Amino acid sequence: MARGASETERTAVGWAARDAGGHLSPFSYTLRKTGPEDVAIKVLYCGICHTDIHQAKNHLGMSRYPMVPGHEVVGEVEEVGAEVTKFRAGDVVGVGLIVGCCRECHPCKSSNEQYCPKKIWSYNDVYPDGKPTQGGFSSAMVVDQKFVVKIPAGMAPEQAAPLLCAGVTVYSPLKRFNLAAPGLRGGVLGLGGVGHMGVKLAKAMGHHVTVISSSDKKRGEAVDHLGADAFLASSDGAAMAAAAGTLDYVIDTVPAHHPLEPYLALLGLDGKLIVMGVIGQPLSFLSPMLMLGRKSIAGSFVGSVEEAEETLAFCKDKGVTSQIEVVKMGYVNEALERLERNDVRYRFVVDVAGSNLDGAA
Amino acid sequence: MARGASETERTAVGWAARDAGGHLSPFSYTLRKTGPEDVAIKVLYCGICHTDIHQAKNHLGMSRYPMVPGHEVVGEVEEVGAEVTKFRAGDVVGVGLIVGCCRECHPCKSSNEQYCPKKIWSYNDVYPDGKPTQGGFSSAMVVDQKFVVKIPAGMAPEQAAPLLCAGVTVYSPLKRFNLAAPGLRGGVLGLGGVGHMGVKLAKAMGHHVTVISSSDKKRGEAVDHLGADAFLASSDGAAMAAAAGTLDYVIDTVPAHHPLEPYLALLGLDGKLIVMGVIGQPLSFLSPMLMLGRKSIAGSFVGSVEEAEETLAFCKDKGVTSQIEVVKMGYVNEALERLERNDVRYRFVVDVAGSNLDGAA
Repeated sequence: MARGASETERTAVGWAARDAGGHLSPFSYTLRKTGPEDVAIKVLYCGICHTDIHQAKNHLGMSRYPMVPGHEVVGEVEEVGAEVTKFRAGDVVGVGLIVGCCRECHPCKSSNEQYCPKKIWSYNDVYPDGKPTQGGFSSAMVVDQKFVVKIPAGMAPEQAAPLLCAGVTVYSPLKRFNLAAPGLRGGVLGLGGVGHMGVKLAKAMGHHVTVISSSDKKRGEAVDHLGADAFLASSDGAAMAAAAGTLDYVIDTVPAHHPLEPYLALLGLDGKLIVMGVIGQPLSFLSPMLMLGRKSIAGSFVGSVEEAEETLAFCKDKGVTSQIEVVKMGYVNEALERLERNDVRYRFVVDVAGSNLDGAA
Repeated sequence: MARGASETERTAVGWAARDAGGHLSPFSYTLRKTGPEDVAIKVLYCGICHTDIHQAKNHLGMSRYPMVPGHEVVGEVEEVGAEVTKFRAGDVVGVGLIVGCCRECHPCKSSNEQYCPKKIWSYNDVYPDGKPTQGGFSSAMVVDQKFVVKIPAGMAPEQAAPLLCAGVTVYSPLKRFNLAAPGLRGGVLGLGGVGHMGVKLAKAMGHHVTVISSSDKKRGEAVDHLGADAFLASSDGAAMAAAAGTLDYVIDTVPAHHPLEPYLALLGLDGKLIVMGVIGQPLSFLSPMLMLGRKSIAGSFVGSVEEAEETLAFCKDKGVTSQIEVVKMGYVNEALERLERNDVRYRFVVDVAGSNLDGAA
């Protein structure tokens, strides 16, 4: 399609949840006209993140229906607005968790727009004009160019999808907390979508990586399969004691309540425990466990658009790939169920363009 | 006295607790011979820190008696060992919380000896030869030169005493967590010995300082007396909400269990809550409160010898003084009681050399 905004709204077909049951089914809706700063995107692939379950099932009590989830979106540019110079039709691009921000606040002005108090989520949110946002489990999206990133040439689009949320979620704090230098010793707690990217990115940064899990069950896949340097079962008191004080950081991806003391104990001087799970119950710690070692518990939330671009470039450069299971849209409800019981190694990606979106597969 | 180690052990008179009642009374004991690396010090002044109460009363379950507390020690060098080049008789020097470390571990090798797992406390600890350490509420101490700092010329010795623990306890994390640059906005929670030094040091660094207290009672002393820029009563919901997201850090000196959410909410992007109170009950937080803003909860524990020297130099340079109430040793038990109920503005310092140590005043 030629450069320049189309004059009409277009119809998209997405898969939407209609209520807190969270079951997705076909849903037609209109996309806004491609504005001067907009990029109209035909969706190719979209990853499935644990947050999609929380939103579809209204776990956070703020869901609006019908809701088309999906925020690890890779697509092809179909049309760009008159002011768009960074993209052209045919480009393969990505969209993550955010599609709007105020551009005035300190986070926005410092390229930390994911922390803007007025950020607009890719779905389950509304634009200033009241129109709902809808995500990537859909034939198409129209997105402000500020929130669109280029997928590096030569990177498989389905491989890129998980980097747009799971990947940058790990990359951003490692960079921001000065943990990207080679030679560090890191721990990764939890081997889901984010955790497996944690192992791969940390290894690519030149770190010694220990996977920590509740039991010995995942030792094989962590060490042999994902390439972790070491494995710790948190139930093995002697092994945990022997590893005390040895890590520079622990990436904590566990999305449910859990004690922090065992992992704080693994940290050495200036060690950082980076919490990434949205957890409804309070987590707790004993103050001397932070004080004796100048340790920190830090939080981080995805990453900026700039950092998404850096993550993609880093993965391309280092040959880091996500490990995914590609499914058709007709399988999405089963995929969500399997994800909820952590039965995926390690990320589902929906082949949106290759699916029959109008009906069940 | 001439340079060179004395050949005999000397007798010191300190004020010691004999049991968990924590009452201090005169106690004679011998000091080790001045070894090649040792500095023999006649104590002039010694500050009283909240930790002294915990130790004297066995709040931490690890007290040994008889125990001479005191770890904000300023004294005059009486004699130095043959290998000591940094000090000479007559120098005014300080000793803090630590008098020994392993010199082999990562913290020791990186000038963070306060985090050495084998550090030796100034009192309520033992030297490798089994001899107990005794603190500064005493006529004299013999201390390895590594743990002795020079008090800058022109600084009143009683003024210097609180800088050796309360002062460096604030200075060290502000420096280590990159919070020493001018123009930052800081909060200080709790106006005790450490808190008042927090206000003074942060102001001297060029920060906008807000004192946070449970009620409005301390507004006057915080703003008019200590020079804070602003005051927040945590009980004033509207004021707390209006201040949300405005601070770069909060120094949390509260030594008892308290909620952290109100103070995490005051932090802006990348804000840090620095916990300094040794608290037996777990503190808690909600993970999204850290994640949405990339905030941290960090701990810190006094500072290194190097940082103590920096703190002294900084205070000398900026004209920062501690605010103290000087008392005689005969008053020490009453002072401890008053400190326990926070009835001091803001630090007691015992005039050790000016006291009759052999009997009650």
